[in-house]
Amino acid sequence: MQGIAVIGIGQTQIGEHWSVSLRELAGQAVFAALADASMGKVDGLFVGNMLSGTLVRQESLGVLVADWVGQKNREAFKVEAACGSGAAALRTAIMAVSSGEMDTALAVGVEKMTETKGPETAAALATAADADYEAFQGVSFVALNALIMQRYIHTYGWQHSDFAPFSINAHANAVNNPYARLREPISEQAYRDARMIATPINLLDASPIGDGAAALVITSTEHLAPTREKPVIEIKASTSSTDTLAVHDRQDPLFLEAAYKSARRAYAQAGINPQDIDLFELHDAFSIMSALSLEACGFAERGQAPRLALDGGIQLSGSLPITTLGGLKARGHPVGATGIYQIVEVVQQLRGAAGRNQIPDARIGMAQNIGGSGATVLTHILERIS
Amino acid sequence: MQGIAVIGIGQTQIGEHWSVSLRELAGQAVFAALADASMGKVDGLFVGNMLSGTLVRQESLGVLVADWVGQKNREAFKVEAACGSGAAALRTAIMAVSSGEMDTALAVGVEKMTETKGPETAAALATAADADYEAFQGVSFVALNALIMQRYIHTYGWQHSDFAPFSINAHANAVNNPYARLREPISEQAYRDARMIATPINLLDASPIGDGAAALVITSTEHLAPTREKPVIEIKASTSSTDTLAVHDRQDPLFLEAAYKSARRAYAQAGINPQDIDLFELHDAFSIMSALSLEACGFAERGQAPRLALDGGIQLSGSLPITTLGGLKARGHPVGATGIYQIVEVVQQLRGAAGRNQIPDARIGMAQNIGGSGATVLTHILERIS
Repeated sequence: MQGIAVIGIGQTQIGEHWSVSLRELAGQAVFAALADASMGKVDGLFVGNMLSGTLVRQESLGVLVADWVGQKNREAFKVEAACGSGAAALRTAIMAVSSGEMDTALAVGVEKMTETKGPETAAALATAADADYEAFQGVSFVALNALIMQRYIHTYGWQHSDFAPFSINAHANAVNNPYARLREPISEQAYRDARMIATPINLLDASPIGDGAAALVITSTEHLAPTREKPVIEIKASTSSTDTLAVHDRQDPLFLEAAYKSARRAYAQAGINPQDIDLFELHDAFSIMSALSLEACGFAERGQAPRLALDGGIQLSGSLPITTLGGLKARGHPVGATGIYQIVEVVQQLRGAAGRNQIPDARIGMAQNIGGSGATVLTHILERIS
Repeated sequence: MQGIAVIGIGQTQIGEHWSVSLRELAGQAVFAALADASMGKVDGLFVGNMLSGTLVRQESLGVLVADWVGQKNREAFKVEAACGSGAAALRTAIMAVSSGEMDTALAVGVEKMTETKGPETAAALATAADADYEAFQGVSFVALNALIMQRYIHTYGWQHSDFAPFSINAHANAVNNPYARLREPISEQAYRDARMIATPINLLDASPIGDGAAALVITSTEHLAPTREKPVIEIKASTSSTDTLAVHDRQDPLFLEAAYKSARRAYAQAGINPQDIDLFELHDAFSIMSALSLEACGFAERGQAPRLALDGGIQLSGSLPITTLGGLKARGHPVGATGIYQIVEVVQQLRGAAGRNQIPDARIGMAQNIGGSGATVLTHILERIS
């Protein structure tokens, strides 16, 4: 892959932004990213978004955002891969730069989810699953993950409370992230007592939805200004794979094959081993997904990820810090924007700009964004090279 | 741009496919394209679609189609640019191949629009416009185009009936296209008598919606098997530009600036002049759009496109045949699939496989796909090189 660097990052706080429109929300992130990159214009703009057609009644998101942020006449369109839409927009931007079609590109993730009623939002989220063979049966997206978690607990002999460290760690890390939606620490007792949503997933296993936007400016490293003050963060790997869309079609629903393939190819592309990774922003939409991602990416044996968490390995001081600024669980999960938030946070860490949550000497960071229940998986590895 | 060739095409008849699901419809086109390319697998798959979330309650379209057509583990996602989604998916596939990320890729356009009630479908189509400043005011997509047509007639002094040749030509050409939705010729009298939809747009100014899918297999010309029996059709230009999303934000609503910029760059990329083009598949969602596209692309002076049509220049035997297999008007307009249908038809012409509608010795063809009322415009130029 040609050398590509992230030279600008921007993000909005995740919350209920009822007074801010979709384009304004995206604009806040874009303007922050452009300012961070000290740039006014880019050559193209790709928007990651899942639900704007359903919940905001707005498609044409590419031109909507390009027009609003003063990038008229640029190429712009929207990319959708359910909750993996953000990283898919980044993939598109990377291919655009790497093909030589453009020198600089913006990848923007944006989602507005809180102005509709709960059942409407839940039904919209179910469009990430197989409409004909899963959602049609009344299976919600939480319920699908609950089936997987139930099976995992049964197969490997864990207790529900063994998953507590994933949520506790995410909440602890979000406290210091001003962009996070849930900045309250939670206790193990609170986790045990949380309201059940779809057995065995309780409220504190699940990430909160939210309105939010995040943006990245990328450029070919050939065009990097030599006088840059900020560290150069290069994208060393960008890969994507797919599994079956429906969970029941998988030989083993406890193994994220697409995550495995995507990660393995990313390691090869970057020329590294999992052990070289200093932090991992994974897709903890539900705590069970943290476990499955860690295993698929080679950080834990099959069925043993809860052990890594219980031993503290996933904490900021652990062997593999995850969700270092709150993850989906506590930073929040504005679905189509999440993949961009993850990369923004990896860049914060690699720049040494993660504040009180800084991983000392972080040099290599990985982000993994998942659409559907492991159906579409995108993996990016970034490295500080100056 | 690196050499990229279209080596497989596939399409379904456009109609009301109530007994065929979204994935099955896409699959029919994909299997046809793979068979045409004599291939079983590709490296990635990009789906152009606008309305699946709203009308079919299905997102995750990339993996849905990849899974269904036996391309699991391949990269796959959906691309949206309203009615320009199809060509945007092709753009993505081109960037994927041209960046070296993959050797072969599928671009698929699919849309299912006929199983919902009229007002619901019309409201979904309005998401192509500006939700906050156009659709919110009650302006439908037809009404937006009606405002533009009214202004055009007023400014340049034409009569409504002067637009008849666009629709008559499209219908005449669809008669011989087995994939077209409306295979009946229409008379000038029928055009004059057609029911008014939004003054001055009547029923025969507007393209019909439909269910349909079309697919393209592309590959780097470096990887072309030397023994191919079919002519090699190379993509000589692939460009995209954007305008304001809302029509009222434009200095001149009668000039498609994004079409102009996209076409001008395409000519430069292909190293040709407009006069070199043997046929032009333009985006005749409404007859006024045919006129504006012809003018923006340099085939007629401002305000003079109806003259070209009245003089027969747009017919199969004319100086610039357009909508040679029926166009959006008569082949049909399954919105997110249309951009791929256009390219499929250009390839049919350049291969000499357009049947009774064959343009003799066609060597260079252009397709232009438009999302919104000129908001996103994508232009492709293809050439037969063997």
